[in-house]
Amino acid sequence: MLQEPLGGQWGEMSVMMPHLFQGWNCRGPQKYKDMIMDIGTEEIAHVEMLATMIARLLENSPVEAQEDAARNSVVGAVLGGSWVEDVIVAGMNPQHALVSGSGAMPADSVGYPWNAKYTIASGNLLADFRFNVTAEGQGRLQVSRLFNLTNDPGVKRMLAFMIARDTMHQNQCLAAIEETAANGPEETPVPSNFPQSLEDGRVSYQFWNCSEDTESSEGRWSAGTTPDGEGTFEYLASPQPISSDEGQLNAVDPRLYGTPTHPVPKTAKE
Amino acid sequence: MLQEPLGGQWGEMSVMMPHLFQGWNCRGPQKYKDMIMDIGTEEIAHVEMLATMIARLLENSPVEAQEDAARNSVVGAVLGGSWVEDVIVAGMNPQHALVSGSGAMPADSVGYPWNAKYTIASGNLLADFRFNVTAEGQGRLQVSRLFNLTNDPGVKRMLAFMIARDTMHQNQCLAAIEETAANGPEETPVPSNFPQSLEDGRVSYQFWNCSEDTESSEGRWSAGTTPDGEGTFEYLASPQPISSDEGQLNAVDPRLYGTPTHPVPKTAKE
Amino acid sequence: MLQEPLGGQWGEMSVMMPHLFQGWNCRGPQKYKDMIMDIGTEEIAHVEMLATMIARLLENSPVEAQEDAARNSVVGAVLGGSWVEDVIVAGMNPQHALVSGSGAMPADSVGYPWNAKYTIASGNLLADFRFNVTAEGQGRLQVSRLFNLTNDPGVKRMLAFMIARDTMHQNQCLAAIEETAANGPEETPVPSNFPQSLEDGRVSYQFWNCSEDTESSEGRWSAGTTPDGEGTFEYLASPQPISSDEGQLNAVDPRLYGTPTHPVPKTAKE
Amino acid sequence: MLQEPLGGQWGEMSVMMPHLFQGWNCRGPQKYKDMIMDIGTEEIAHVEMLATMIARLLENSPVEAQEDAARNSVVGAVLGGSWVEDVIVAGMNPQHALVSGSGAMPADSVGYPWNAKYTIASGNLLADFRFNVTAEGQGRLQVSRLFNLTNDPGVKRMLAFMIARDTMHQNQCLAAIEETAANGPEETPVPSNFPQSLEDGRVSYQFWNCSEDTESSEGRWSAGTTPDGEGTFEYLASPQPISSDEGQLNAVDPRLYGTPTHPVPKTAKE
Amino acid sequence: MLQEPLGGQWGEMSVMMPHLFQGWNCRGPQKYKDMIMDIGTEEIAHVEMLATMIARLLENSPVEAQEDAARNSVVGAVLGGSWVEDVIVAGMNPQHALVSGSGAMPADSVGYPWNAKYTIASGNLLADFRFNVTAEGQGRLQVSRLFNLTNDPGVKRMLAFMIARDTMHQNQCLAAIEETAANGPEETPVPSNFPQSLEDGRVSYQFWNCSEDTESSEGRWSAGTTPDGEGTFEYLASPQPISSDEGQLNAVDPRLYGTPTHPVPKTAKE
Amino acid sequence: MLQEPLGGQWGEMSVMMPHLFQGWNCRGPQKYKDMIMDIGTEEIAHVEMLATMIARLLENSPVEAQEDAARNSVVGAVLGGSWVEDVIVAGMNPQHALVSGSGAMPADSVGYPWNAKYTIASGNLLADFRFNVTAEGQGRLQVSRLFNLTNDPGVKRMLAFMIARDTMHQNQCLAAIEETAANGPEETPVPSNFPQSLEDGRVSYQFWNCSEDTESSEGRWSAGTTPDGEGTFEYLASPQPISSDEGQLNAVDPRLYGTPTHPVPKTAKE
Repeated sequence: MLQEPLGGQWGEMSVMMPHLFQGWNCRGPQKYKDMIMDIGTEEIAHVEMLATMIARLLENSPVEAQEDAARNSVVGAVLGGSWVEDVIVAGMNPQHALVSGSGAMPADSVGYPWNAKYTIASGNLLADFRFNVTAEGQGRLQVSRLFNLTNDPGVKRMLAFMIARDTMHQNQCLAAIEETAANGPEETPVPSNFPQSLEDGRVSYQFWNCSEDTESSEGRWSAGTTPDGEGTFEYLASPQPISSDEGQLNAVDPRLYGTPTHPVPKTAKE
Repeated sequence: MLQEPLGGQWGEMSVMMPHLFQGWNCRGPQKYKDMIMDIGTEEIAHVEMLATMIARLLENSPVEAQEDAARNSVVGAVLGGSWVEDVIVAGMNPQHALVSGSGAMPADSVGYPWNAKYTIASGNLLADFRFNVTAEGQGRLQVSRLFNLTNDPGVKRMLAFMIARDTMHQNQCLAAIEETAANGPEETPVPSNFPQSLEDGRVSYQFWNCSEDTESSEGRWSAGTTPDGEGTFEYLASPQPISSDEGQLNAVDPRLYGTPTHPVPKTAKE
Repeated sequence: MLQEPLGGQWGEMSVMMPHLFQGWNCRGPQKYKDMIMDIGTEEIAHVEMLATMIARLLENSPVEAQEDAARNSVVGAVLGGSWVEDVIVAGMNPQHALVSGSGAMPADSVGYPWNAKYTIASGNLLADFRFNVTAEGQGRLQVSRLFNLTNDPGVKRMLAFMIARDTMHQNQCLAAIEETAANGPEETPVPSNFPQSLEDGRVSYQFWNCSEDTESSEGRWSAGTTPDGEGTFEYLASPQPISSDEGQLNAVDPRLYGTPTHPVPKTAKE
Repeated sequence: MLQEPLGGQWGEMSVMMPHLFQGWNCRGPQKYKDMIMDIGTEEIAHVEMLATMIARLLENSPVEAQEDAARNSVVGAVLGGSWVEDVIVAGMNPQHALVSGSGAMPADSVGYPWNAKYTIASGNLLADFRFNVTAEGQGRLQVSRLFNLTNDPGVKRMLAFMIARDTMHQNQCLAAIEETAANGPEETPVPSNFPQSLEDGRVSYQFWNCSEDTESSEGRWSAGTTPDGEGTFEYLASPQPISSDEGQLNAVDPRLYGTPTHPVPKTAKE
Repeated sequence: MLQEPLGGQWGEMSVMMPHLFQGWNCRGPQKYKDMIMDIGTEEIAHVEMLATMIARLLENSPVEAQEDAARNSVVGAVLGGSWVEDVIVAGMNPQHALVSGSGAMPADSVGYPWNAKYTIASGNLLADFRFNVTAEGQGRLQVSRLFNLTNDPGVKRMLAFMIARDTMHQNQCLAAIEETAANGPEETPVPSNFPQSLEDGRVSYQFWNCSEDTESSEGRWSAGTTPDGEGTFEYLASPQPISSDEGQLNAVDPRLYGTPTHPVPKTAKE
Repeated sequence: MLQEPLGGQWGEMSVMMPHLFQGWNCRGPQKYKDMIMDIGTEEIAHVEMLATMIARLLENSPVEAQEDAARNSVVGAVLGGSWVEDVIVAGMNPQHALVSGSGAMPADSVGYPWNAKYTIASGNLLADFRFNVTAEGQGRLQVSRLFNLTNDPGVKRMLAFMIARDTMHQNQCLAAIEETAANGPEETPVPSNFPQSLEDGRVSYQFWNCSEDTESSEGRWSAGTTPDGEGTFEYLASPQPISSDEGQLNAVDPRLYGTPTHPVPKTAKE
């Protein structure tokens, strides 16, 4: 399960890579680039810590240490007494035995490989800081869950360290969000330099009740000044279509052999 | 390019599906579930709008309308006068001709299929609202870029509508974040009900300068009270390892055929 | 395992999304579009049913309810008495604990995320109805298998409902296939409006025996009138190549550094 | 674009691999296994034909043959006269130059790699024959579209051959479907040996109108005997929920840090 | 676990497909093409062997044979006595029951589907032979690990056969590498016909110590003639940047809404 | 196209990540671990170089600099004079505009995201060094191809540097391979400490001619001592099956609803 905070969607690789790409691509003020690179570099070390921990946990588990116990178990009796049973009993990912030979893998807790779609770097600092604070939150949530899933004091100590750094990085991202607003490069709504006069102002601050019941009218999002300071929330309990377009399509080039609106008898086809 | 806001990582499918799963899985107060379902339902309609627009734009493009123009172009002369040139000249994704027959596809602007890793639903409302505000920001950013990439008034009108709804949804998510903090179910750091006494308090509010230069000391994140109100930022210009562990590993079961620390001569192997 | 009919290749998401895209892209007669949208809409509800059922099953499983039993088991003795053992003993996907916090995920029974390649919408109604009847059959097959894999009466009741709807939808798709043929927009072979005079008529109705033995000559496919009514099956026990082309390739631009047909001594290279 | 019928979702690799796996896994009567292996083997040759054709087309395109023409083009003037412009002008996938060195790739027309999710082999012959007839239909549709996208007589000749074989294979699969029903191993609904008495018979033959308008009542699927011969279609214009379950969830183990239904003040958390 | 050598990254499908594509794309001397096709064809049979073995192992496992044993186990008591427990006890992939109905799947040991990125065919024989010798080595390593994970004599016999063929194919690839160098089409460094005079000769044979400590100076790679016979290894304990470029970026088109280097106050934005 | 050496299968990310994981997981002699970490660290810098170069090339391309030229082109006339045409004319990946806002992306030249399956770390040094020498060869091949695809002197200078480092790293890996054999931890065949007495010795050194023609008998691999020094190549022009097993399967549990060998009439099913 420690693979999840290493190579999962919200694992350390997914904090390291976005920060590196955000930093390398950064065109904003230099203090932001430097700050982003600081975190990205730190996160390389977090990946190393997790990889090392996983490799150590796999050193004597399950193939050797638990052999005697498992051999005598009921499960062992069913399966016939080979290594397979040990791997199964320990809930070990078989690829840790077959593929990595007891090493860490850049994959999550079900063996799904890390991929670069987890790397967000849009060129817009506020858009990306919001992603970063999300990543630090989802990551801290997962590590907190893991903290309760083990009794091993060494593992708990490492996780306590990681939870603390996630506390720091959440705060740091929120501070960076404050800073961008205070200094003006970016505010809500992102991107703030798209002229709001060009958007469809009729619907910019309307809440549409689109599902059954109206409990949604009870929240902060249904009335009062909007967080961007530019509007007032309006609650529409029964929103209506603002266009009568029913979405009908026309025919396309017959050489694409789609089904036409009006059938053509086969005899006329050739 | 309109495929990006339909089936891209930050397109409408990536707003619709997370809201539906967050709503179906919601165990929090009912007003949150209802609000989340309202947006999720609205977003189904956004996907339909984009799909319809794309299908219409493909009705007479490029195979027919531009045929005469392109046939006479320099490019046409090189390629030899078939449909292929039209598809190429128009920058059209060939799968719109071959695979969907002039229909919209659940894929992004380079044809990469949408996948469910874009769907975040963690069971923790604040963690997920932060994802949602990220998605609305990245989405509004991309649609704003697209707005400048077309002269078609009908497309511009639809994009102006979408940008406005992204304005609303950003504000709405920020309001929901305020509300969770005001009412206590969730605050920073996420998850707020993990006891901070269990994390490694020594490093919870330290900024580590891990790359060259110290411009990063100039930001809001390097001094002052932290946004969670629980600590004070401390800036370490030269952070040191807090452990002397060099990460050495031990040998594993020889039946995994890894390379051992101390070589075994082949003659001794069998 | 209930994730398979939710987010697997032939799960409900893979019926919902193709119907929505087929409907939105539909250029055929309106009754087809309306029928397709009816199913697509119904399937959103099926996804919700499964998501809700999974979230409920995860409410007290395995972390709490089975805790006492497992703590005392042989397996528990091996693993040391933490939550991990419970998750393993229950065969629970660890991401249900770590990632979704006891919520349903848009993934299959081994945690592989749903992706949009499962969404087929070609613009040709008969081609797509055949996909739909396949999806309803594969789906009903999987749910039938699941039906035998549980003793829980509530789960069985929901599965019995889904199997019945798959019965309906299989019948409905077959009826739609009949209808397209009766009314002429599409018949076998798909696409029926490609002129068969342009295909290579020599091989249109020949069965080629390409593997050992000739049991394949015993089926309906080796003799008699073909289902499209246009030809007669012919069985070739020893088919021969109809071209003498051995597939040899020529050299390409040397700036691509492929290995040339005739070696170039290195001294001549620079 | 020829990569689509080679390595696309409905390309020849996607016919070859399912047939091989269906054949290797076949437990049904021997004549089915032999027939399936015949097609699977033939399809290996189809993949080879397409790979060879693509490799030949890349022999002098675009880098050499079109060099003079393109160098003088308007586009050439913009881009500055290197190979890049040729690749772009010809709409060539850059990976054909960079990765395969003018060879075919196991990918589709936008460079997305083939993957084994396109391989269906369920162990149920009727379920899989329906997939096969779908694959042959979608494949024939795409090749027919391609046929119109080229003027090259050699390419057209090869495509005419492939369209003809798809005609055969569609007919063959339909014949196999007839045969399974005639001989009883499998009928509609798939799987036919799941006892229908166990499904929720109330909804097995009801059509539910779930979207606006009722054009869907005009089709073969809304009235009359169902294709499986076991029921009668019933059209419900306004279907109602058959359960009053609103999908509310209960709390889960607090150690998963989900947001609870009733907020817990932070002061009480530690 | 036998799925790993079938459909894993280094399984038999990943030897079969690269050889077929390398052979079909081969423009080098005919003896190479013929040799590559020989292996590719043999490997189709290896895939069949593994698929058949897996399908047989799934015939009476776990659903029937182990039923009595498991029903009485401690684990069975916890789970409640349905098939699910059997699947879990046996460590069986649930998709073998739900998706393939006891057939082999084109996926690895954690259910991740095989994909064509495992297929390497670059057009350069030496580059590809090195990939092939890697694949045969990684494959033999995994099968050797599996050999120790079972007690079943039939499975062991098949694995012993596969290990032997991997011995042969490793030797064969190494012999092919020797042959290409002896006959000149390709030598080290690949590609050997790129003129080394065009590369940055200052750094062609320098070892850079980029991590802590200098144990890396003790290897064959830090001194002496280089394997290509063209240079001498030089060890730099403290390598310095050879450029003073700090990677600063300039502003881009403001219509992309990136964050600019110098903040623009919002009032000036519209 | 520069994305290919950055985020492609054989790009710098695919050299950086395997070296980091091989190093972190290394249990072999310390000089190997140190050497591997040296390269891994250097490669982080290569990724940064490419990311910076791409971000700079996107600074004034295509949106501004080429605007005037393209506006007047024939293509511009067809497309109507917006940015879209510029992006298309320049062959620019639309995601560089929409997603990254003129920044580099962790993806290849067709926009396919980098994924961790490109990261090989098996725990066996020789198996992994062979992968590394493959990666350095495929990478140098692709960069050499790119070198010819540009006239930009700055880009050419950077590529010349990378080609030189790939020369070094190929030599370094080959030296490491020599060293492992000289010192005995690993020799051919990998893994060398699996006892060859356990493999099926009958087929360990036989070449099987499995395709038409026998040109394959002309190579080094068909006669003489094998590279591992343990055998002699033997060429079989007509290899025969060594087993009479035809791969027939038996029935499985009927509750999986596979098609049985002998049909069951439907009347007997319920």
